[in-house]
Amino acid sequence: MATGTGTVSFQTVRETNLRTVLRTVRELAPCSRAAVAVATGLNKTTVSSLVTELMARGLVRETGETSQRRVGRPGVLLALDDRSVAAIGLEVNVDYLSVVAVDLLHRELVHRHVPLDARSAGALDCAHRIADTLREVTEMSELRGRSVVGVSVAVPGLIDAPSGTVTRAPNLGWRDVPLRELLRARLADSVLSGATVLVDNDANLGAMAEYRFGPLAGLPDLVYVTGEVGIGAGVLTSGELLRGAGGFAGEIGHLELDPNGPECSCGRRGCLEALAGIGAILRTALPDLVADRPLSGKDVADLVEVAVERALSGQSTAVAALERAGTWLGRGVATLVNVVNPGAVVLGGYFVPMAPWLLPRCREAARAHSFAEEAGGCQVEPSDLGMSAASRGGAAVMIHGLDAGDLPLPPPLPLP
Amino acid sequence: MATGTGTVSFQTVRETNLRTVLRTVRELAPCSRAAVAVATGLNKTTVSSLVTELMARGLVRETGETSQRRVGRPGVLLALDDRSVAAIGLEVNVDYLSVVAVDLLHRELVHRHVPLDARSAGALDCAHRIADTLREVTEMSELRGRSVVGVSVAVPGLIDAPSGTVTRAPNLGWRDVPLRELLRARLADSVLSGATVLVDNDANLGAMAEYRFGPLAGLPDLVYVTGEVGIGAGVLTSGELLRGAGGFAGEIGHLELDPNGPECSCGRRGCLEALAGIGAILRTALPDLVADRPLSGKDVADLVEVAVERALSGQSTAVAALERAGTWLGRGVATLVNVVNPGAVVLGGYFVPMAPWLLPRCREAARAHSFAEEAGGCQVEPSDLGMSAASRGGAAVMIHGLDAGDLPLPPPLPLP
Repeated sequence: MATGTGTVSFQTVRETNLRTVLRTVRELAPCSRAAVAVATGLNKTTVSSLVTELMARGLVRETGETSQRRVGRPGVLLALDDRSVAAIGLEVNVDYLSVVAVDLLHRELVHRHVPLDARSAGALDCAHRIADTLREVTEMSELRGRSVVGVSVAVPGLIDAPSGTVTRAPNLGWRDVPLRELLRARLADSVLSGATVLVDNDANLGAMAEYRFGPLAGLPDLVYVTGEVGIGAGVLTSGELLRGAGGFAGEIGHLELDPNGPECSCGRRGCLEALAGIGAILRTALPDLVADRPLSGKDVADLVEVAVERALSGQSTAVAALERAGTWLGRGVATLVNVVNPGAVVLGGYFVPMAPWLLPRCREAARAHSFAEEAGGCQVEPSDLGMSAASRGGAAVMIHGLDAGDLPLPPPLPLP
Repeated sequence: MATGTGTVSFQTVRETNLRTVLRTVRELAPCSRAAVAVATGLNKTTVSSLVTELMARGLVRETGETSQRRVGRPGVLLALDDRSVAAIGLEVNVDYLSVVAVDLLHRELVHRHVPLDARSAGALDCAHRIADTLREVTEMSELRGRSVVGVSVAVPGLIDAPSGTVTRAPNLGWRDVPLRELLRARLADSVLSGATVLVDNDANLGAMAEYRFGPLAGLPDLVYVTGEVGIGAGVLTSGELLRGAGGFAGEIGHLELDPNGPECSCGRRGCLEALAGIGAILRTALPDLVADRPLSGKDVADLVEVAVERALSGQSTAVAALERAGTWLGRGVATLVNVVNPGAVVLGGYFVPMAPWLLPRCREAARAHSFAEEAGGCQVEPSDLGMSAASRGGAAVMIHGLDAGDLPLPPPLPLP
């Protein structure tokens, strides 16, 4: 039924229909053109024309097999074309870059983890390293012959998404960094010059990855908590990312839980990340190895390994530090329960190897400090996406953007 | 375009179309049947039949005027029928019942505020008082000849909405009270026996009222904070109520802000409502009048008046108590900013007369304790809906339910 919302241009109708057919092939593949026509309500001639265009753009292919039908000519089967396009997700964090490239089926083509002392490098050098890493990935054999439809960059901080500017990322030491513009400039002469570049918060993209690929995939009220030097949350409610009025939602790292607590990178005291961020954990778990100053990014992964080894061997300082952090994390989870009542909170990043010591105390504190009984039914679980949750989530958002219409469709492939 | 989601019954299509026409008349009134046909894409014969049915059900009427057209027969104009149906919203709180009845245009027909010491009365007596009050309202001359399509009951506590059970309302002293069943039993022999009864959280319904009628109406990321003995929040994100996985979202009254703070009704220490709820404010503002025990519901309104009078006259204890509460409220707002980043927080209930002293400190603390600068752009404003925000919101939800299909349409009116 038309609701009087006005006319749409022919171009828009065709684009909408292209994406509808793309989604339908994703859902039903392998499937015939006739099956697509039935599922979409579009007539067969239109479907054939749309499929031809999707094939030319490298999004749909014929599988080479045919459907078994009792009557009539057998139908050629269609599937998504997993050979022609790719999307890239990259995360920059205090101590690493993580990059994944995926095909149209969300299958990983490339996965790189690059140690990087981002804070020491500074914003401009970091942007150059990100651009160079993206360029290197596009030159890898796994991406040969593919067009990259979009690049997503995850950053631990407040992001002005429309402009791609990092407003504030205290753990990187960034303020008002026009990241997208810097990347565009550095990539102007590369194959990525025309690709859509999205900058988003690392926790938001991690939440998208958990919602699609994690152990609790599909849970509509799910929170992903980043376990890095900083702590952030990506909050999904009813399956949608909660961004808030200015895009600043989920900054749970700066909940002030202890007025007498340690100083935080934001200048306040007793914030969750000053109590339970990876830097705070390492300082209390390894007082002999970590001085009382901002952690150098290049040491974080090694130090996490040492802390876990010591905890495994029962060393009491390490165990106590992890358990204490678990309790503070539970206080943070309780705040999430009281405000948004999630069905689950997934702990990611470096919290995963520390989970055996963090989780019991975290769950206990979450129950004790939530108003709703049993923390309102909220599960707390470790992620199984490792350090690549945000980059995988970013790549997934790009592929989904093709289906959903947020991203331009790729141009027709060059003729062979 | 059909998307293959299956068939719908003829009845459902007709019901859907009835509601579409109802919404269209609401939007365009006064309007002709022809205008409805154009706006909905339904053919004129169908529209005529649907309009006839909506008129028989007391939802649409002819205005008696006709449209001016250059050619053809003038069209009879339609409008919503504001004479035949009503919806009722009732709020029970620690010290009062608030009831409003509205017509199909959301216009107030009845508005009553009934002082009630709910805690002393106990759950069963309270339920009886609520039922009797509802019955009295239906017997008032303003509702004569109207059918009541639905009743909404707002309660300050955790609600299991599907069963209409109040799981926990510490300030009322309720736990697992099957309120809807109690009301149904008490109203079985009344004109309300067939009406839909919804039980919901007071803050959620207050937020709905602010979103429709308040000074910040239409703001999609808006939080309403109840200013009663308890403090709760109704959180709207992108115009939708954030309920969370178990319906327990928005319990900001039990954010533990001060580990050394006063004991709370929930058994913990230093919760926001133990620091800035109306009971806490009155105890610190009026130490000579209020003893250090749960406030008796029947005194609250009078004591609020005294506290405001003393603050107006500059009495330092009263002023300091209000300002201190404002600062804690600001800490609560900062938590909301860090987690959900609202565009505005509206303070309701008894916070409104106290706003001149609460607001400056509240805004200042919200800015100081939010991670995003300037509290992420969050305004903090007093409500202008007085003590009837939750009851008005509840009545509005019922009327909206008719338009949206959440509520059964009323039966045809008896023939005159």
